[in-house]
Amino acid sequence: MNGLIVSVIVIFCFLYTANSIPYDYWTVRAQILTSEQKSMLGGQLDFKHDERIANDFLMTRKRAEFENAFKNSSLFLPGRNFLEARTDIKNSEVYKIIRTMPKGAVLHAHDTALVSADWIFWNVTFRPNLYVCESSKGLLQLRFFEKPDDNCSWKLLSDLRKNKSIVDTINSKIYKQMTMLTKNPEVDYKDVDKAWSKFIQIFAFITPMLTYKPVYEDHYYEALKDLYMDNIMYIEIRSTLPNLYELNGTVYSSLETAMVYKKTTERFMSDYPNFVGAKLIYAPSRKVDEKKFDEYLTILKALKEKYPTFLAGFDLVGQEDKGQPLIVFANKLRSLDPSIDYFFHAGETDWYGSSTDENLIDAVLLGAKRIGHGYALTKHPLVMEIMKQRGIAVEVNPISNQVLSLVKDFRNHPAAYLFANNFPVVVSNDDPGLWGSKALSYDFYLAFMGIMSQNSDLRALKQLALNSIMYSNMDVEQKNNALVVWKKKWCDFIEQLVNSSQAQQI
Amino acid sequence: MNGLIVSVIVIFCFLYTANSIPYDYWTVRAQILTSEQKSMLGGQLDFKHDERIANDFLMTRKRAEFENAFKNSSLFLPGRNFLEARTDIKNSEVYKIIRTMPKGAVLHAHDTALVSADWIFWNVTFRPNLYVCESSKGLLQLRFFEKPDDNCSWKLLSDLRKNKSIVDTINSKIYKQMTMLTKNPEVDYKDVDKAWSKFIQIFAFITPMLTYKPVYEDHYYEALKDLYMDNIMYIEIRSTLPNLYELNGTVYSSLETAMVYKKTTERFMSDYPNFVGAKLIYAPSRKVDEKKFDEYLTILKALKEKYPTFLAGFDLVGQEDKGQPLIVFANKLRSLDPSIDYFFHAGETDWYGSSTDENLIDAVLLGAKRIGHGYALTKHPLVMEIMKQRGIAVEVNPISNQVLSLVKDFRNHPAAYLFANNFPVVVSNDDPGLWGSKALSYDFYLAFMGIMSQNSDLRALKQLALNSIMYSNMDVEQKNNALVVWKKKWCDFIEQLVNSSQAQQI
Repeated sequence: MNGLIVSVIVIFCFLYTANSIPYDYWTVRAQILTSEQKSMLGGQLDFKHDERIANDFLMTRKRAEFENAFKNSSLFLPGRNFLEARTDIKNSEVYKIIRTMPKGAVLHAHDTALVSADWIFWNVTFRPNLYVCESSKGLLQLRFFEKPDDNCSWKLLSDLRKNKSIVDTINSKIYKQMTMLTKNPEVDYKDVDKAWSKFIQIFAFITPMLTYKPVYEDHYYEALKDLYMDNIMYIEIRSTLPNLYELNGTVYSSLETAMVYKKTTERFMSDYPNFVGAKLIYAPSRKVDEKKFDEYLTILKALKEKYPTFLAGFDLVGQEDKGQPLIVFANKLRSLDPSIDYFFHAGETDWYGSSTDENLIDAVLLGAKRIGHGYALTKHPLVMEIMKQRGIAVEVNPISNQVLSLVKDFRNHPAAYLFANNFPVVVSNDDPGLWGSKALSYDFYLAFMGIMSQNSDLRALKQLALNSIMYSNMDVEQKNNALVVWKKKWCDFIEQLVNSSQAQQI
Repeated sequence: MNGLIVSVIVIFCFLYTANSIPYDYWTVRAQILTSEQKSMLGGQLDFKHDERIANDFLMTRKRAEFENAFKNSSLFLPGRNFLEARTDIKNSEVYKIIRTMPKGAVLHAHDTALVSADWIFWNVTFRPNLYVCESSKGLLQLRFFEKPDDNCSWKLLSDLRKNKSIVDTINSKIYKQMTMLTKNPEVDYKDVDKAWSKFIQIFAFITPMLTYKPVYEDHYYEALKDLYMDNIMYIEIRSTLPNLYELNGTVYSSLETAMVYKKTTERFMSDYPNFVGAKLIYAPSRKVDEKKFDEYLTILKALKEKYPTFLAGFDLVGQEDKGQPLIVFANKLRSLDPSIDYFFHAGETDWYGSSTDENLIDAVLLGAKRIGHGYALTKHPLVMEIMKQRGIAVEVNPISNQVLSLVKDFRNHPAAYLFANNFPVVVSNDDPGLWGSKALSYDFYLAFMGIMSQNSDLRALKQLALNSIMYSNMDVEQKNNALVVWKKKWCDFIEQLVNSSQAQQI
C-alpha cells in the first residue's frame, strides 16, 4: 500500500468521530481518488510531455464511447458477446489506436489456435492431397495423405469440390467445424461445458490437417506474422508438440516438432528483424494418467537438454474442471530439475472451492513463474499476496473467458480487481483464431474498455506492454534488447498520435 | 490479516529460493487452506458439539448438489436465472434447511416490494372500489376511489370482471404488470436499462393501488408475516413514505405514513412477540432537483423529531446510473444533524470509474453506517479498507443483482471476494415480491451455494445472521435482546437438524 493511501486511511479512520467531521470533505475526497489512480495498473508511471498529448487524444475517444454507452447500454461493446460484437469493435477509434500500439509480448497462446479460420480455409484446405471423410456422427475429418488409410472412406477434397451441387455445402461444413463463430453464442455456449465441447471439437478437427509438417510450418509462420502486424514483438507459445507427419508416412517426434518451432522462428526473425523472438512452453493435455504423464516428463527433460534456452518451461492444458488437478502430479513435478520453469493454467473456473480452484495453491507452491488465467484468483487472498510478493504474474485472457462462458459481460471480469491494485498481470489472447479474433488488439481493447476503470489511460496500456516483457521468460540481456526495440516503437507510436492530434486541430 | 496468514507468507516468500524448496509442500499447502478457511466469513466461529452434527447434515446436502452440478453444469441452480430456477430451488434440501434457520434481520428491503404479486392479486385487486383504466400505451392503471376522477376513463374492476369474455384477459394483464416473472429473462432483461424499465413500471402500477391506507397497512403487515414465517425477527425498511389516501379524498403526509409503519409494527409485535421490531429508513427518489431534495430534508428532520428511535435514517433510491450521484447533495447532507444516520445505496453498477461508482467514496465520507449493494466495491480497495476499519457493512442483495441484470451467473458475483475476506457484510432481499422470491431464504441460498466457497459451511450462515443483528441500527439494549431471542431460536434450529440427522441414521 503506498504512503498516500496509508495517510488517507489514518486521516479518515482515526481522526473521524461519529458526531463531527473535522477533515475537509473535498480534500479527502480528492485524495482518495488520487490514491485509487496511483494504486491502479499504470498509476505509477509518469507522463512525458508528448505522452500527455497522445493520452488526451486516446482518452477523448475512450470517453466518447463511454458517454454514448452510459446513455444507452445496449451500445456498450464489452457488454455484448465478442462473437457478435467483434465487427463493431473493429470500427472503434480506441481499437484502431490500440492496433497501432506496440504491445510487447504474447505470453499465453496455444499452437494451433492462433491463426484465423479464414486463413486455414483458404490457405490449407485447397492444398493437394487433402482428403475428407464423414464420421458416423456427421462430422467431417480432414487429413493429408499420399494414399489414404482404411480407417475411414476418405475422398480427395479437390475432387468433391468439382461437384457443383455439393461444393457449397461441404465448404460451409468445413468452415463451421473450424470456428466458434455462431449467431447465437448465448444459446450454443450456454455454459462452460457446452462451450468447451465445441472448442475441443475444433482442435480435434484442425489438428490432423495442420500437423502435416509443411502446413504446420506455414501455419506457425502465419501466426507470427499476424502478431507482428499487430505490433507484437515476442511470443511464448504453448504447444502440445503433436507428432507431425509427411505424405510418405514419416512421423516426427515431439522433439522434432520443437525444432520446427525453433527454425521457423529463426526464419521469421531474419525476415522481420524487429521481431525479437519466441520461446516454447511444452503444454500437453492434463487429462492423462500417471503413465502418460511420465512420458511427458521424459519428453520435457529431453527438450530441456536439447533446447536449454528456447524451452521456456512446462504447463498442462485442457478443460481444467474435467482434467487432473495439479495436486495429482505435484510430487513428480517437485522432483524435476529446478531450472525447468512452470507456467501452469490454474483457476480457469468459477467453481469456488473446487479442485480446479485449488490448482491456484499448487501452482504457486510448485513455483510457477506465471499463472494461466487465474480467473478464480480474487477468491484467494493469500495466493494473491504470495504472487504479489514473489512477482508471479497472472495471464488474463479476456475474450477467451467470455467465449468459453466463464463471464458474460466484461464488466464483471474479476481482473478489474487486479487492475485496480496494480497486480502483476499480463493480457493475452489464448486462442484468437478460433473465435474470429486476430492477434492481441481485441483483448487489449476489451481489457481497457470493459474491465479497467473508465479513468484508466495510456499508462495502463503502457504498463501492460512493459509487464509483458518484464514477466516473460527472456533472460536479462534479451529483456534489455527487447526493451530497446520496444521503446523505439513506443516513441514512434506516441509521435504518430501527436501528429493525429495536431492534424485534427488544424 | 491473521497470524497464521502472515506466517505462511513469511515461510513462503522469504525462505523459498528459486532453486530449492526447503519447506514441506504438504504442510504449507494444508496451512494455506486452513488460513483461507479462517479468513472467510464465519471462519472465526468455532463449532459447538451439536453444531458440528448439524453442519455435517447440511454439508452432506450441499456437497451432493455440487457434485451433481460439477458433472453437469446445466444442473447448477445458481448458474441459472432466478426467474426460471426458483421453482427448482424450492425443492433443494439445502434451501429447505435455510428456510428453517433463524436468519436474524432484513436490513435492505423496499416498502411496496416485499409482498408477492400473488398476495396483491388475490388480496387487493378483489376489494371493492378498485377502478381500472387503460392508458394510451395499453398499460393498465388501478386505484381505489369513492368516485373516480376525470383523469382517465375509470371503470369499476369488479364490474369488468363480471364480463366472462374479458375477465381472463384483464386478470392476466394485471398480474403481468405486477411482476418481473417472464419466460425469457435473458431476452426481456438483456441489460440493466431494460430490466430497470420494467422494474420501475411495476412500482408505478402497484403504488396507486397499495397507497390506499387500509391496503397499505395490510400489505405491510403481510410483509412482516412473510418475514416472520421465514424466521426473520427484525427489519429496517426503506420507504419513500408515499402519501396515503382514503376513499373520501383524505391524503396523508409522509409523517403520517411513517406512523402507519410504527403502529402496524407494534400491532404485529403484539401478535407475534418473538418478532423484535422494525425501524424505518426514509428513502425517497434520487432523481430530483435541489428544490425537491430540500423538501426531503424538511421531512427527514420532522421524522427525526417525531420518531427519534423508530427512524433509523436516510437513503436515496432509484436506478443509480440514471439518478443524481451523491456528490450533488453532499454539502447539504454534511450539514445535517449528525444523529441522523445514512444508509446509502452506492455502487449498484458495473460502470467502473463512473459517477455511480464514485458514490461509494461519497457514501463513506458522508459517514454511512451501511452501504446498499456496493456491487462495485471490489474495484475500490481504499473504500473497502475504510469500511473494514470503521465496521461499515455492505448490504448484498444477490437475486436483485441478477434480475436487474448486473450479473448473470451468481458465481461471478463480486461478493465472493467479500465472503473470502470476512468483510462486514449482510445478505438481504431488496424487492422479493417483484421477482417471485419470498422473504430472505432464496437470497441466503444463492449466497451460500452460488457466491461463497463450496467449503463455506454452517458457520458462514450463522455469521450472516449475527452480522444482521450487529450491523443493524438497533441500540445496544435492543441488540442484546434480539441476540437472546435469536440464540434461543438457533438452539432449536440446531436441535432440529440433529434430530433429522439421527432420524436418518435409524
